[in-house]
Amino acid sequence: MARPPSTPDLQALRHALSAVVGAPYVRDAVGPDHMADFLVLPGSTAEVAAVVTICHAQGVSIVPQGGHTGLVGGCQSHPGQIVLSLTRMAQIEAIYPDERVAVVQAGVALEILQNAALAYGLEPGIDLAARGTATIGGMVSTNAGGIMAHRYGVMRHRVLGMEAVLPDGTIYSDMTRVVKNTAGYDLKHLFVGAEGTLGIVTRVVLKLEPVPQSTATVMLGLPSAAAALEAISLALRSDVGHLRAAEGLWQPYIQLTARAQGWAEPSFPLDQPICLLLMLGGGNQADLTEAIEQIFGATLDRHPTATGIIAASQRQEADLWRLREDTDQLYRAHPGAPSYDVSVPLSEIGAYVDHVVNGLAGIDGGIAPFVFGHLADGNLHIVLNRNGPLTADLSRAVEEVLYTPLRAFGGSFSAEHGVGVKRMSYLGTATDPGKLRAMALVKQALDPDRLMNPGKVLP
Amino acid sequence: MARPPSTPDLQALRHALSAVVGAPYVRDAVGPDHMADFLVLPGSTAEVAAVVTICHAQGVSIVPQGGHTGLVGGCQSHPGQIVLSLTRMAQIEAIYPDERVAVVQAGVALEILQNAALAYGLEPGIDLAARGTATIGGMVSTNAGGIMAHRYGVMRHRVLGMEAVLPDGTIYSDMTRVVKNTAGYDLKHLFVGAEGTLGIVTRVVLKLEPVPQSTATVMLGLPSAAAALEAISLALRSDVGHLRAAEGLWQPYIQLTARAQGWAEPSFPLDQPICLLLMLGGGNQADLTEAIEQIFGATLDRHPTATGIIAASQRQEADLWRLREDTDQLYRAHPGAPSYDVSVPLSEIGAYVDHVVNGLAGIDGGIAPFVFGHLADGNLHIVLNRNGPLTADLSRAVEEVLYTPLRAFGGSFSAEHGVGVKRMSYLGTATDPGKLRAMALVKQALDPDRLMNPGKVLP
Ligand SMILES: Cc1cc2nc3c(=O)[nH]c(=O)nc-3n(C[C@H](O)[C@H](O)[C@H](O)COP(=O)(O)OP(=O)(O)OC[C@H]3O[C@@H](n4cnc5c(N)ncnc54)[C@H](O)[C@@H]3O)c2cc1C
Ligand SMILES: Cc1cc2nc3c(=O)[nH]c(=O)nc-3n(C[C@H](O)[C@H](O)[C@H](O)COP(=O)(O)OP(=O)(O)OC[C@H]3O[C@@H](n4cnc5c(N)ncnc54)[C@H](O)[C@@H]3O)c2cc1C
Repeated sequence: MARPPSTPDLQALRHALSAVVGAPYVRDAVGPDHMADFLVLPGSTAEVAAVVTICHAQGVSIVPQGGHTGLVGGCQSHPGQIVLSLTRMAQIEAIYPDERVAVVQAGVALEILQNAALAYGLEPGIDLAARGTATIGGMVSTNAGGIMAHRYGVMRHRVLGMEAVLPDGTIYSDMTRVVKNTAGYDLKHLFVGAEGTLGIVTRVVLKLEPVPQSTATVMLGLPSAAAALEAISLALRSDVGHLRAAEGLWQPYIQLTARAQGWAEPSFPLDQPICLLLMLGGGNQADLTEAIEQIFGATLDRHPTATGIIAASQRQEADLWRLREDTDQLYRAHPGAPSYDVSVPLSEIGAYVDHVVNGLAGIDGGIAPFVFGHLADGNLHIVLNRNGPLTADLSRAVEEVLYTPLRAFGGSFSAEHGVGVKRMSYLGTATDPGKLRAMALVKQALDPDRLMNPGKVLP
Repeated sequence: MARPPSTPDLQALRHALSAVVGAPYVRDAVGPDHMADFLVLPGSTAEVAAVVTICHAQGVSIVPQGGHTGLVGGCQSHPGQIVLSLTRMAQIEAIYPDERVAVVQAGVALEILQNAALAYGLEPGIDLAARGTATIGGMVSTNAGGIMAHRYGVMRHRVLGMEAVLPDGTIYSDMTRVVKNTAGYDLKHLFVGAEGTLGIVTRVVLKLEPVPQSTATVMLGLPSAAAALEAISLALRSDVGHLRAAEGLWQPYIQLTARAQGWAEPSFPLDQPICLLLMLGGGNQADLTEAIEQIFGATLDRHPTATGIIAASQRQEADLWRLREDTDQLYRAHPGAPSYDVSVPLSEIGAYVDHVVNGLAGIDGGIAPFVFGHLADGNLHIVLNRNGPLTADLSRAVEEVLYTPLRAFGGSFSAEHGVGVKRMSYLGTATDPGKLRAMALVKQALDPDRLMNPGKVLP
């Protein structure tokens, strides 16, 4: 039973908030989707709790915000709301190198933590292109993924402990530094991936992983997704080093990106159905390069038409990775192109991509997808060759093609970016009713007044 | 608002339950802590849902049960309840070797799954001595740990998808076969570790891991826990193979167990403060043995008093592991000896064990602990040299010594066995109030009538 929307006395609210966080930290909210009345920047957990308590008492709803790099509109706000930014809470509180554990405030940017951990030869085990701005709190709240999830899991698997502020201002504290903890319900997992709708993440204990001393990268041109998965299997079974990344770039993607970047290698024609960017990490450079050569050789034995480039320098390695990371080229060619982010079980990927290509070809005169993504964990990004946004009808037709097969084989229509506002209606219509019912019960229990990021994830 | 306890018409209930699961599957509950009226054995998720719906309508509470190997009394029942056993739901529904994924019903015993996965060179990535009887549903419900958690995480990290029956009979279905899924709240994590108090786990999708082709084991005798952690660090950084297990056995434990088993090696005196059982896994036996020898050598360089035995055969390897797994010897020497299961951040272990030994020495004429456990993840088992049970006063004094330091440094008084009835009162008095509040809200939301395993975890 949500309360009726209140019409708070803005001046009084601003005054009350200034009293707890300091006047300079209550600012006008600015930016394209910031229609909220203020942006509030607390500097500590106690201040977050005080802000939430005031808003709870006055029935004012809160949009939590980290680096604002989320891709599903989770930070959008409107009049009558406040934006609560965690960016002032940006302390790395401790790194325990022997435990491979870091304790951070939620507003720490990923790259800041990466640099601090690197001083100990460690890394957070998760990486994404928005690293300079995305915060740990935002990554926890969206359960971020990235290129290493096949090995180290997603953000949920990196979190050992958490502190959060519940919608009524109560502080929830479970800052365990250990992987084994069965002392009651492990409710930190409710806040992971909740996109700010169940509370505000304020501090996190994270696992770290050793950074490999060396890496070796090959880009393979292959006849099929199945051939790419075979090469990934070889890499996973390699006795030397470990698979660090395995990104798949289907032909339309690599052709557009390479052309836009002016990238070309005479020995590597871009007309193979799929390219696989494979990186091994480990101790010894020569051993890794030999292992990469073996994978390339074994691939050639099975698929004589395959091609490949082994990066001969760090510079060449970076050039190959730029082909994968520079997704902006798609949006330059097709401004506002609609994009999708799905998870597909590995054995279904080949047939699924065929289905998508054929299905989209039949829509509205023919739509062609750019497909690329984290092949080792089955996470595909799909961008259409259309300027966005699509009409509602067209959008439904595309979703029908892309999303319908996923449920039957246990995929997901929302892999790593979350639901936000962008995928809320699909979630509401296509999710198992038992799951929706349980979600609604949990939301109602923790946030009965719907003050935490209302209108995101759940209606 | 719990309903007043009902006095169901037992005959009518038995009749209704027989109608949905078949008369042979409603049996008298037997066994030491089975005081329930019946044991019901559904054969499918639909039957579980039907049983739960009937019990929900009649206000009858349910004790879910898997292999009944849990160590905290989670399966205890009393008159007016039914026990719902999952052991008839014991199908391995599918194994996808290329995805390294298994789909199982909750009643599958761990060892059955281990054997089925082994046919593909895979394993569930979790192992424990109760493997022959413990079920996947029970392991999910207790968030079981074991010896490989430092590498593959605990049960929570093994689960990709889940189906469960909510306390009102609704089926919750989220059988995803992928690691990345941000399609709404990931509520399977509520059921992991809930010990049957939030619903009944019926089916699970699990990650599998490749079984190493070879293993090599050394037992080191070392001057301190710090020396053992150094050896673990060396093993983690080894370029060859990977650390598979690192179990610590403090002197009183190894002395009692070795003596009871008649185990002795002239070259390995049992008077070192701590023994470390270290296992590497990998592709090539000779390389692994060399890596183990290097770790032993480097340890000797730093700690000249260290001793070690490298297992020269599978037989010798099994003998060394029997020293760790045969914990029964403790209970033969001290029937009913009180036991504890704590998590300690790695850098605190040395000081913590000293604190425990000294603290217990001061209680009631002196108590001496046997300490052993999963050193690589900081999970220590502590068994007292006393016949159990302790008086309530003594019990409180012991808990005071063992548990008080844990919270300050982010350990846990319940690492891998859960809360059940055994640790419920400590949970209630020593847990963060914000966490207790959130737990109560979630329990109330999903199970307002308190029909799911009442009196376990939460009062
Ligand atoms: C170039 C680029 C590349 C990307 N690559 C990837 C990728 O590979 N993998 C991937 O998973 N994502 C990727 N993303 C998406 C994005 O970076 C992630 O979703 C990231 O986790 C968002 O972090 P943030 O701090 O910017 O969160 P924000 O955008 O500020 O917030 C995201 C959501 O979380 C909520 N939130 C933020 N902080 C908190 C908090 N402390 N407590 C509670 N709720 C909070 C917000 O309300 C919002 O709903 C990419 C984005 C860009 C722009
Ligand atoms: C010799 C021995 C060694 C052990 N070693 C370890 C170890 O190394 N690590 C470790 O973590 N544990 C260990 N244990 C403890 C025990 O094996 C685990 O807790 C195991 O997970 C219990 O599985 P089970 O099927 O026997 O569950 P049960 O004992 O039947 O049930 C355990 C709890 O889960 C609930 N439950 C069971 N099935 C379901 C279901 N399908 N849905 C909902 N709730 C359910 C029950 O109500 C109960 O509260 C050991 C036990 C023994 C006897």
